[in-house]
Amino acid sequence: MDGRVLVPWKQNKDNAPGALTVEVYDGRAEPPADLGDVVFYVMPYGRPNAARLLRRMPRLRAVQLLTAGYEHVVADLPAGTRLYNGRGLHDASTAEHALGLILAAQRDLPQWVDDQRGNVWNPHYTRSLADTRVLIVGYGSIGEAIEARLLPFETEVVRVARRARPASGVHGIGELRRLLPTADIVVAVTPHTPETEGLIGAAELALLRDDALVVNVGRGPVLDTAALLAERGRVRAALDVTDPEPLPAGHPLWNAPGVLVTPHVAGGSDAFYPRARRFIDEQLRRWVAGEPLANRVALDGA
Amino acid sequence: MDGRVLVPWKQNKDNAPGALTVEVYDGRAEPPADLGDVVFYVMPYGRPNAARLLRRMPRLRAVQLLTAGYEHVVADLPAGTRLYNGRGLHDASTAEHALGLILAAQRDLPQWVDDQRGNVWNPHYTRSLADTRVLIVGYGSIGEAIEARLLPFETEVVRVARRARPASGVHGIGELRRLLPTADIVVAVTPHTPETEGLIGAAELALLRDDALVVNVGRGPVLDTAALLAERGRVRAALDVTDPEPLPAGHPLWNAPGVLVTPHVAGGSDAFYPRARRFIDEQLRRWVAGEPLANRVALDGA
Ligand SMILES: NC(=O)c1ccc[n+]([C@@H]2O[C@H](COP(=O)([O-])OP(=O)(O)OC[C@H]3O[C@@H](n4cnc5c(N)ncnc54)[C@H](OP(=O)(O)O)[C@@H]3O)[C@@H](O)[C@H]2O)c1
Ligand SMILES: NC(=O)c1ccc[n+]([C@@H]2O[C@H](COP(=O)([O-])OP(=O)(O)OC[C@H]3O[C@@H](n4cnc5c(N)ncnc54)[C@H](OP(=O)(O)O)[C@@H]3O)[C@@H](O)[C@H]2O)c1
Repeated sequence: MDGRVLVPWKQNKDNAPGALTVEVYDGRAEPPADLGDVVFYVMPYGRPNAARLLRRMPRLRAVQLLTAGYEHVVADLPAGTRLYNGRGLHDASTAEHALGLILAAQRDLPQWVDDQRGNVWNPHYTRSLADTRVLIVGYGSIGEAIEARLLPFETEVVRVARRARPASGVHGIGELRRLLPTADIVVAVTPHTPETEGLIGAAELALLRDDALVVNVGRGPVLDTAALLAERGRVRAALDVTDPEPLPAGHPLWNAPGVLVTPHVAGGSDAFYPRARRFIDEQLRRWVAGEPLANRVALDGA
Repeated sequence: MDGRVLVPWKQNKDNAPGALTVEVYDGRAEPPADLGDVVFYVMPYGRPNAARLLRRMPRLRAVQLLTAGYEHVVADLPAGTRLYNGRGLHDASTAEHALGLILAAQRDLPQWVDDQRGNVWNPHYTRSLADTRVLIVGYGSIGEAIEARLLPFETEVVRVARRARPASGVHGIGELRRLLPTADIVVAVTPHTPETEGLIGAAELALLRDDALVVNVGRGPVLDTAALLAERGRVRAALDVTDPEPLPAGHPLWNAPGVLVTPHVAGGSDAFYPRARRFIDEQLRRWVAGEPLANRVALDGA
């Protein structure tokens, strides 16, 4: 086939259909000098600068991202290029970190870590995850993966997305305020959009039960930091994403009682790489076979 | 019915069949002065002294424990008394803590807690739980509950018990050494018996892969502490039970790299109480109906 394909890992080059001319670009090394004949670009993961190369690829037909978000490339996308995102690739990693945060918060793991540092053996009874009702706000790809992991813990899961899907038991976001008072745990896992900014704000937090837990593994600005701080001590939180991010030293979230913070690491674990590599292999196979690729992003005018 | 029944919670008295004379003894308040007519004793949970009362109950016919272990009451049991244990009541609580320990260890939660205390935002990639092979050593009631919670995390579970049960895919303990080199994570959840003491010792730990994780939610002496310390830095551990227990200040396990310790709290969470109360209600119903009670412990000569 005409034109070059750039992939981030050698394994993808090795597995690629023979019809393709494949080159490895990992986002760290210098990019190939001439990008004029690149037709398929799998953007290296976690290398924001890799998007800049798009402007040097006039013949580009397809860009494959390894993130679910794609806002950062739209401006640089050559006209007529199709965009595919990494929806699904982070599900296992992000969902398991969400469960880790929930279990840590319910079972007082931060306290046990502090006690271990102080060599103190001081057991106490804790909350459990069993018997809780968990509201998943953003019942998409990751939300479903979180649900699958929650259910064997003898929990009840309530699904919320932008639009109601009654046939699948998914509530629309308009029902959020009615549902919040029934929840023990709220997991936010939506993208950051104008509609989701501050989605969990003062009014929403006020509707939560005393001692409820808010988990954010989506994007920081979805949860209103000032509103959460105003409820500190009454509502607990476990946050992988924050606003601002990174959280500067001295920020009150770091030291708020009942707040657990991890530094945006939910998606970044060993689970990601094998899934990403398998997915790229499969996309290149589809490309050569002339089949529609998975995960196409619908863009205005594209 | 003749004779009195002692239960630990008022709810059980309220729910008991009308034919029974029921009194609440919670293990904290003074016990009833005259225990001569007690025929059914539900021993209060977490009150080791409650076993001493057994000697003052000559007409006792049944003792219901709320723990799976029963070694602590056998000596005081009046002749002819049937013993019932709490197998199953701690499954949800213990299994979810086991998952909490596993996720904390795989996803570096202790590091994030330390970083939070220091107000440091310093993300790094971590191991995952997905794609691991987990050996459950002690595939009993809690082992099964751990498995149910592990499987949606895209793990592979290998089951080991005392005796092989090929029809259920359970390996016998004789296969342990063959299986250890294939495991990423080993979860020990057996009782403490002469056979299980030191079950995971130097030879077993030596068979583990570099960076493997050993989890103990069974009993401390099942894992050889000195052998684990000798492997520190190569093999990781997450321990809810230790040997000795409690772990004294200054004990090297507290400060060993890659070792997470919680102070025997796996069974002690909110999940326990509703399950224990429902179980006691059901046992009393069976007792009055003349049905066999659940969870009878087979004792020599009883
Ligand atoms: N912490 C991390 O390391 C990490 C890792 C990966 C991803 N993430 C974040 O997680 C987000 C979700 O990822 P995903 O793969 O699950 O995406 P997805 O499959 O597109 O699902 C997103 C979900 O959010 C819902 N949503 C969007 N706008 C909403 C609104 N205004 N109100 C309520 N719900 C709304 C969508 O509802 P509809 O179904 O009705 O459209 C959908 O259910 C990503 O966008 C990213 O920001 C974080
Ligand atoms: N950390 C905590 O807070 C906490 C809470 C509750 C319980 N526990 C501990 O967890 C233990 C297990 O509880 P459970 O309710 O799951 O008990 P269980 O249902 O009786 O299961 C015990 C399992 O251990 C296996 N086993 C016994 N001896 C063995 C040996 N020598 N080698 C290999 N496997 C052996 C048994 O094998 P077979 O099936 O072949 O007999 C069985 O599968 C309890 O005894 C208690 O010590 C700890």
